[in-house]
Amino acid sequence: MSDGLEMKVTALQNEVINLKQQLQVLQDIEDIKRLQCAYGYYLERWMSEEIIDCFSNSPEVSGTFVEGTYKGPEGIRAYFGKSREQPPEFLHQVMQVSPVITVDPYGLRAKGRWYGYGTVAFRPVNNTIDPNIMSVVYEMEYIKEDSVWKILKLALQLHYSYNMRRMLGMTGEDEPAAPEGSLELHPDERAEFNTSYPSGYIYPIHFVHPVTGKPTSEVKRNARLKLKPNPFKPAE
Amino acid sequence: MSDGLEMKVTALQNEVINLKQQLQVLQDIEDIKRLQCAYGYYLERWMSEEIIDCFSNSPEVSGTFVEGTYKGPEGIRAYFGKSREQPPEFLHQVMQVSPVITVDPYGLRAKGRWYGYGTVAFRPVNNTIDPNIMSVVYEMEYIKEDSVWKILKLALQLHYSYNMRRMLGMTGEDEPAAPEGSLELHPDERAEFNTSYPSGYIYPIHFVHPVTGKPTSEVKRNARLKLKPNPFKPAE
Amino acid sequence: MSDGLEMKVTALQNEVINLKQQLQVLQDIEDIKRLQCAYGYYLERWMSEEIIDCFSNSPEVSGTFVEGTYKGPEGIRAYFGKSREQPPEFLHQVMQVSPVITVDPYGLRAKGRWYGYGTVAFRPVNNTIDPNIMSVVYEMEYIKEDSVWKILKLALQLHYSYNMRRMLGMTGEDEPAAPEGSLELHPDERAEFNTSYPSGYIYPIHFVHPVTGKPTSEVKRNARLKLKPNPFKPAE
Repeated sequence: MSDGLEMKVTALQNEVINLKQQLQVLQDIEDIKRLQCAYGYYLERWMSEEIIDCFSNSPEVSGTFVEGTYKGPEGIRAYFGKSREQPPEFLHQVMQVSPVITVDPYGLRAKGRWYGYGTVAFRPVNNTIDPNIMSVVYEMEYIKEDSVWKILKLALQLHYSYNMRRMLGMTGEDEPAAPEGSLELHPDERAEFNTSYPSGYIYPIHFVHPVTGKPTSEVKRNARLKLKPNPFKPAE
Repeated sequence: MSDGLEMKVTALQNEVINLKQQLQVLQDIEDIKRLQCAYGYYLERWMSEEIIDCFSNSPEVSGTFVEGTYKGPEGIRAYFGKSREQPPEFLHQVMQVSPVITVDPYGLRAKGRWYGYGTVAFRPVNNTIDPNIMSVVYEMEYIKEDSVWKILKLALQLHYSYNMRRMLGMTGEDEPAAPEGSLELHPDERAEFNTSYPSGYIYPIHFVHPVTGKPTSEVKRNARLKLKPNPFKPAE
Repeated sequence: MSDGLEMKVTALQNEVINLKQQLQVLQDIEDIKRLQCAYGYYLERWMSEEIIDCFSNSPEVSGTFVEGTYKGPEGIRAYFGKSREQPPEFLHQVMQVSPVITVDPYGLRAKGRWYGYGTVAFRPVNNTIDPNIMSVVYEMEYIKEDSVWKILKLALQLHYSYNMRRMLGMTGEDEPAAPEGSLELHPDERAEFNTSYPSGYIYPIHFVHPVTGKPTSEVKRNARLKLKPNPFKPAE
């Protein structure tokens, strides 16, 4: 009987190990979703320190935006540390939605795809908001350090960003464009191409197809496109 | 003492079975959310094969859109297989948000309600995006086959879809309407009614109230409405 | 050997207790997300009873909206019980997205931050929808009673809400404003300040920073703002 009991206990031990592993992956996914949504709330009013603290201090860290890539903790600090003192009229709402999170088998790295969607505004016009509708797709990398998930790499494709009045041809010629694009941008590496609408570019998808397990066709599709140069790249 | 130990082991075995079941439901919910969000990313540039691969091959499979229902794997293939070669200017961004997922007690079927929201665009106007804002509510059915969740039934109510310039009366008379509606549509079953705004129709909710456990009042509310015929239904 | 077995069983018991606790928190988070998303679907067509049933009957219950706070179950019932018979043209779509849910250590209370985003419409104009784009941030409190999560406190900051045509200056002078603001509002406690755009106000964040574990800087930032009086507060 004791032998039978011992076998049962061994079987239980194995089951518990499996449960722990499966539960850990779900916990990791929830923790990562929380991290990314927190990032979004901090972004709304450009809370520089809180945003920077979402990132690892690893030298691998990077942030890729429309103009190019900022590298290392200094790059992240330079990018998000600017514009610390925004006036109250500045709103940078980017809602973080539609996560697909993939934790790697060792449980210390993960990737995620998200949409970011929302409204950016710089100052009221006619006593109301002057909305810029912004939509991006993120491909993220995360790292777990001392049991805490952090952002390792943030990379985004800007789908579109349009000032509603300008899109409709309702601004005067003398009205200055929104200030965001006019900042001096000094990425460590310039983006080669303009991948915004109407480029047709599909931002490479980190996850395989959830049913077939196969890679998806965006690389092949993108290869057919004739992308234009990135407008932020200075002429050589 | 050995008797006591045996009882403890039996109790543990039962606890582990319960934990496994509870964990499996959470895992199923996460897997289904992942599937649906992946579907949304594939929809953005109409990646036909990837979309079709999200569906089961069961004869029960169907897709219900504004014009009616496409049935069986052939119906899904016919619907999503069209328009494979979209020009780069085509964007069909539908962000999948606000999931309520209900796994049935056997763990092999599930239902889900989601919002789909985003921007559809066909070509640039005045060198910028010409946004069509689209909002739908989905009621989904999922099936687990060989341990993999797939879409069994996709059904949507179109809340509204408006071209921003047209809604504001800012298009010329000679400007063609967006091409989407002009496709020839051949659903296996035509939708009877127009349930878009301002019909007041509440798409039937698959889940009971999370607090009371009771069915909700949309059936009774819908019965009071005078719905108009579906505009896609040909005159008989 | 039996001694060793006993130790293994004791270790397993402890592991199973830990697993149960960890799993319960994930289950609670999923249940709360489900509750909040269900709330959003009921809100779309102002399903009064279903909305009210999402709340606890505790005297602690409250709902805080732009004009102030409604207290107790009667306050919730007064607020959501009004406007029961909306015409079909009324749409109040508020998609619930970007959750950060924090369950307290005893597992009977929780907090959550969400964005609500969507389209409110009162009647068609020019045979199409007349969209009011609305964006709020929620800070929620939840309570678990008899194993069921319910809303204890719902509080929101209105980021912005704009009628698209009015924002663009495209309505006639004689056109009445949307009816929502003209309802008589009788909160139990009036809101002091106008925290909508462009106030710069950051709605206090219930959660500490996910990486540093520290409180965030919004209290300090808000203190620097000169907020205007709440427009719904009657002159004394």
